[in-house]
Amino acid sequence: MNVSKRGLDIQPSPIRKLKPFADRAKEKGIHIYHLNIGQPDIPSPEAVLDAIHHYDEQIISYGPAQGYLELREAIAKYYRSYDIPLNADDVIITIGGSEAIHFGFSVIADPKEEVIIPEPFYTNYNGFASFADVRIVPLTLSVENGFRLPALEEIEAKITGKTRAILLCSPNNPTGTVYTRQELDGIVSLVEKYDLFLIGDEVYKEFIYDGAVHTSVLEYERIKDRVLVVDSISKRFSCCGARVGAVITRNSDVYKALLKYAQARLCPPSVEQTAAIAAYRMGPEYFQEVREEYQKRRDVLYGGLKDIPGIVIDKPQGAFYIIVRLPIKDSEHFVQWMLTDFQMDNETVMVAPAQGFYSSPGKGLDEIRLAYVLKEKDLLRAIEVFKAGLSEYKTHFD
Amino acid sequence: MNVSKRGLDIQPSPIRKLKPFADRAKEKGIHIYHLNIGQPDIPSPEAVLDAIHHYDEQIISYGPAQGYLELREAIAKYYRSYDIPLNADDVIITIGGSEAIHFGFSVIADPKEEVIIPEPFYTNYNGFASFADVRIVPLTLSVENGFRLPALEEIEAKITGKTRAILLCSPNNPTGTVYTRQELDGIVSLVEKYDLFLIGDEVYKEFIYDGAVHTSVLEYERIKDRVLVVDSISKRFSCCGARVGAVITRNSDVYKALLKYAQARLCPPSVEQTAAIAAYRMGPEYFQEVREEYQKRRDVLYGGLKDIPGIVIDKPQGAFYIIVRLPIKDSEHFVQWMLTDFQMDNETVMVAPAQGFYSSPGKGLDEIRLAYVLKEKDLLRAIEVFKAGLSEYKTHFD
Repeated sequence: MNVSKRGLDIQPSPIRKLKPFADRAKEKGIHIYHLNIGQPDIPSPEAVLDAIHHYDEQIISYGPAQGYLELREAIAKYYRSYDIPLNADDVIITIGGSEAIHFGFSVIADPKEEVIIPEPFYTNYNGFASFADVRIVPLTLSVENGFRLPALEEIEAKITGKTRAILLCSPNNPTGTVYTRQELDGIVSLVEKYDLFLIGDEVYKEFIYDGAVHTSVLEYERIKDRVLVVDSISKRFSCCGARVGAVITRNSDVYKALLKYAQARLCPPSVEQTAAIAAYRMGPEYFQEVREEYQKRRDVLYGGLKDIPGIVIDKPQGAFYIIVRLPIKDSEHFVQWMLTDFQMDNETVMVAPAQGFYSSPGKGLDEIRLAYVLKEKDLLRAIEVFKAGLSEYKTHFD
Repeated sequence: MNVSKRGLDIQPSPIRKLKPFADRAKEKGIHIYHLNIGQPDIPSPEAVLDAIHHYDEQIISYGPAQGYLELREAIAKYYRSYDIPLNADDVIITIGGSEAIHFGFSVIADPKEEVIIPEPFYTNYNGFASFADVRIVPLTLSVENGFRLPALEEIEAKITGKTRAILLCSPNNPTGTVYTRQELDGIVSLVEKYDLFLIGDEVYKEFIYDGAVHTSVLEYERIKDRVLVVDSISKRFSCCGARVGAVITRNSDVYKALLKYAQARLCPPSVEQTAAIAAYRMGPEYFQEVREEYQKRRDVLYGGLKDIPGIVIDKPQGAFYIIVRLPIKDSEHFVQWMLTDFQMDNETVMVAPAQGFYSSPGKGLDEIRLAYVLKEKDLLRAIEVFKAGLSEYKTHFD
């Protein structure tokens, strides 16, 4: 009667590991600027909160396993506004993007099969790979060249007889990279050549700056059977706790398999699906405003960090994260030290050590991820405190 | 680029298979009494709807992976009202009882290991076993003896070197059986003897009739390290679509492993957790009223069916289901025929063929499950229509 091997092996959240140190700092009365997590401070849209306040069912009953038709239609319409021809029957509502990834892995790969993912990557992919007993094969990128994809030969070298898919997250968490059409063209050619699926995690689709345009993997008509897109309202509408996501596919066999997975867990949350319908019915001006806000924050953060001596940094093009290399040896130690040993006027900053975003051992030890999820004023102050902390840290540990 | 083997293998919902026939009947203007699914017609409590209408956060943000502390405390308090000493740290909030089972299977068994479950059982266990790649070993029970557990030797014969747990659902979906303390004593002794976990699915805990008392597997202090309980607000508070459940354990190693699974999918839905807090804060008088309503319905259904010639039926003691044997050969054919070929004054009845609740091939072919989730008046009429249908069916197919 022991915990299963997989129960012991599944990775604990690398970010939450530092929470006790943050809690202790707070107990000492220190204010922490949280640049460590992707929880935006942007209020959920009024339309969403209104939909909750006016939820008019008498019974919170089971909905369809694939989600409410109205929501699936609203999502399809959203994609059509980007000239991507989808209809409601290409969409399955999931419990957050999380479940979309879990189900996606499960229907395209059998246990022990492989999915290639550029690293650093969203740590929770590890959890879903564990749920689905799938192996993630990392393709290591580097901050030096702005986390661009390497030459095709280098990607090709990762493909084995067990490879079933390549997963691309764009705009990327944790790097902020947006893959170019040329980069995607290369991946698409590999997917065709090696008969693979392509999973696009596009939950940050709307967060793209400097007037750039997001290219969705759904735009490649010639591989439409090979594409799964993972989506979510969490970041798009600042509704992280609603747990409403979607998996999109135009492959009817994949859809059928996904639907069976969906049936097993009955349905996504009914109240919050209702709220999500209201979210998708807002016009594109909502995104415009939020996008401008994040672009401003990105500029503030990038501008504040880029001149730190010894930093390696590339201006992120999307999402609301950045990974930078610092002139230190052990970023986990640094992050912890910022919580336990540093304060400036009773304030400190919490960031995420980047190690947890790599699956190759020893990678990212001198890198951190910052999320620009605070208002400009707070962000400016956080940068000031961060720089003072880094500077003091280096006098102790250099 | 094909769907994975498991994606092909995972069982489609046996209940949903018949939905197209129901849809066609409705298109023809036939009213269907739905006794096939466990969606109660009891309104969700006003306290729950109020909590939704007054949700006062500005940001629907991520909550803790293990669920809101207030909710975990409310659940622990609920159990303490039954003299079961729990505290908030024994509870992890899950996305419905569904996720509680998926996580439970994953932390107590590795892939290909076994969990013994009396059959007929809740079909979705198959889905979660598939998610977790765990093998369900059925222990076949029979309507002839009211689905009571067999002699211990018979259960013991199912235990192999790969067995990691026994799962008991009481009150039972789909049979309505409530296991006696003596039956549980026997299972507990086996769990100790063979060093197993015991999973108690107790989501129907409050639905127990004739003044009987529910015995929870949590009451067995001497195996407290071995017990996991799966719980949910879906039926208890008629909130099936809220997707708020819980897994309960007093084994700290198991808790730690469950927490890592919970972290991987971030958090349960925030709005509906808030509603669940309101649900648990209602007094026991809420259950009293609902229990009386279901007991009345059970009496109506049991009374209406028991004299059908050739029926094998046992009065259920809990939940809101009953499995009966009918004097027919193929209940799936009968259920379909009731939708396609039968109507009485433009009405028909839909029930669930019992085959899908068995994992042993060939079992349950002449049995059906009925859910008494309709108001007395509707139930009475449904019984009348059902009996007429069965009688006519037998003239064609006997």
